[in-house]
Amino acid sequence: MDHKFPPLKNDLLLRAARGEPVERVPVWAMRQAGRYLPEFKATRAEHEFFKVCRTPELACEVTLQPLRRYDFDASIIFSDILVIPQALGMTVEMVPGKGPSFPEPLVTPEDMEKLDTKCKVAESLSYVYEAVTLTRMKIDGQCPLIGFAGAPWTLMSYMIEGGGTKTHSKAKKWLYCYPEASHKLLQLLADVIVDHLVLQICAGAQLVQLFESHAGILGPNLFYKFALPYIKYISVKVREALTAKEVEHVPMTIFAKDAHFALEELADSGYEVISLDWTIKPKHARSRCGENVTLQGNLDPCALYASKEEIGEFAKELVHSFGTKRWIANLGHGMYPDHDPEHLEAFIEAIHKYSQQPSDEL
Amino acid sequence: MDHKFPPLKNDLLLRAARGEPVERVPVWAMRQAGRYLPEFKATRAEHEFFKVCRTPELACEVTLQPLRRYDFDASIIFSDILVIPQALGMTVEMVPGKGPSFPEPLVTPEDMEKLDTKCKVAESLSYVYEAVTLTRMKIDGQCPLIGFAGAPWTLMSYMIEGGGTKTHSKAKKWLYCYPEASHKLLQLLADVIVDHLVLQICAGAQLVQLFESHAGILGPNLFYKFALPYIKYISVKVREALTAKEVEHVPMTIFAKDAHFALEELADSGYEVISLDWTIKPKHARSRCGENVTLQGNLDPCALYASKEEIGEFAKELVHSFGTKRWIANLGHGMYPDHDPEHLEAFIEAIHKYSQQPSDEL
Repeated sequence: MDHKFPPLKNDLLLRAARGEPVERVPVWAMRQAGRYLPEFKATRAEHEFFKVCRTPELACEVTLQPLRRYDFDASIIFSDILVIPQALGMTVEMVPGKGPSFPEPLVTPEDMEKLDTKCKVAESLSYVYEAVTLTRMKIDGQCPLIGFAGAPWTLMSYMIEGGGTKTHSKAKKWLYCYPEASHKLLQLLADVIVDHLVLQICAGAQLVQLFESHAGILGPNLFYKFALPYIKYISVKVREALTAKEVEHVPMTIFAKDAHFALEELADSGYEVISLDWTIKPKHARSRCGENVTLQGNLDPCALYASKEEIGEFAKELVHSFGTKRWIANLGHGMYPDHDPEHLEAFIEAIHKYSQQPSDEL
Repeated sequence: MDHKFPPLKNDLLLRAARGEPVERVPVWAMRQAGRYLPEFKATRAEHEFFKVCRTPELACEVTLQPLRRYDFDASIIFSDILVIPQALGMTVEMVPGKGPSFPEPLVTPEDMEKLDTKCKVAESLSYVYEAVTLTRMKIDGQCPLIGFAGAPWTLMSYMIEGGGTKTHSKAKKWLYCYPEASHKLLQLLADVIVDHLVLQICAGAQLVQLFESHAGILGPNLFYKFALPYIKYISVKVREALTAKEVEHVPMTIFAKDAHFALEELADSGYEVISLDWTIKPKHARSRCGENVTLQGNLDPCALYASKEEIGEFAKELVHSFGTKRWIANLGHGMYPDHDPEHLEAFIEAIHKYSQQPSDEL
């Protein structure tokens, strides 16, 4: 890396990810830059969703917004997992109140010919890397900056479904009817994802998280065949690429939402951190994942609707269940637009309070 | 019961539910009366969804349709879990391509005052019981007839969300913000559900299934507080009511979709059959549920998109994993509108073929 970044003042996240002692548990929130913040809505009122992603100054601004309010131990670059389908030539629109929409989703394997398989990620997604570098500078070492990408199956399912779906049956139909074409698409995506993660790390990301948001819809059989191998591939290839570039390795997190059936395999897939959704019991997760990975999560996002006192109790329970070693406190999924910003603050403060370690125990 | 029904010629389902020996594993499919069948679509082309539910002759007709095509070991009365909110005075519309919609969902606990809490289920849902009796007559003992109801939390979440949702955050917000009102609503629903199940049994239903379709969104904490107690309550109260009426008890099935975190508790909740979604590994389910319950499920509905040969292999694997004792073969969720009827047939035939018991082992 050619960048000269300000020194990191709070490395709790990185130490927790590597399994080193921490004086208190690091905490951040998935989708912490989002519509629950009035200042985010103000930015979005002026600029369309993907315009914010594509403009490094705007992406940096919304990434920093939650850090100005909260005592977070991590920031995550504002971007979207669907920038990769965009880089492959697909049109993705963010429909207000409905979520992302592909006007021309992949219908049959022949449609894969329309994809720009020779896309140069470094060029087409340069705005992400610029945003990462700019943000890392501006954070001024307050906390680490996380980069991210969607995992192959999750991106594939978006590219085929084209919009919201409960069953993901169009995308799953590919796995059953066109397994070869599916593997070809997943491999293409995996290679682009590797590049995208490596480029974010080279640009300044200090940890990267892979989002397999649609893992749960697969069930064990399909997950083992069409998701897990690519999740593993990415962890191996990112490491190899960093070594080849002589760039220091950063911790990697896998968040396979609702993949309760694969915790053991995920713990063994080459990631330092396993992020858990709120349906997983913390103690089950630890006993199934073993002691050699860090766990992340997993407050039910809806628990932030409770009173601040109750949120404090939930945080206390989480600290009690996860313990203070190898744990990064977070929600079990992202923030919702109708969350009260003060309730998130109550969560952060309670985690800090209850996870504080007596200095002689460190 | 005053009805004189034709003798039952195939009681495989009931024997499997009670843990008795079977010469082959019984098989049926959730939503086996549905849009994947051209004859069902023909009926629906002429009659609106709830018109079919409310007209015993039509409900009977569509219930019988799959039995004319397939060698099923069970039928399930055509109805909908949302007839209960309707009986409580709420308007529910079936929006084509979108699913059920409540024009006036419950927004705050005050809205519960609008509910007809004194509703006489026997009168308002008499069409269901007439449909059950008529269908049981017309099935002519070919196989048992299943009755069903939605479980309290699932109905509550529909009544508050009013339509499709990924997060169920409006309904979950009630659980966190208005726990007392939530319990009041859940108790009201539980009592209506008990009546509805008992009346279906009195009308001729030979097994009843409770659908907790939205269990998974709760996670363990909310599920233990707001779903499981009512699931248990219903199994106890249905039994008590049948005893009081001197009506023979029928087996009961609980399908708590995505409640992977609560299999042990479900196995201990008073139901003879635990229905599993496709994310649960059969052998895990058996070891967690013990030997005293029957398991039902759990082919991924999307697996019916595969070739007939592969479907045969999936069925073989299921027989291998579940074994032939205390198992009812089914999907892990309902049929989809774009399923090929012939592929369902391949599944049924393969289950019959691979689960056939040598007669000397019975």
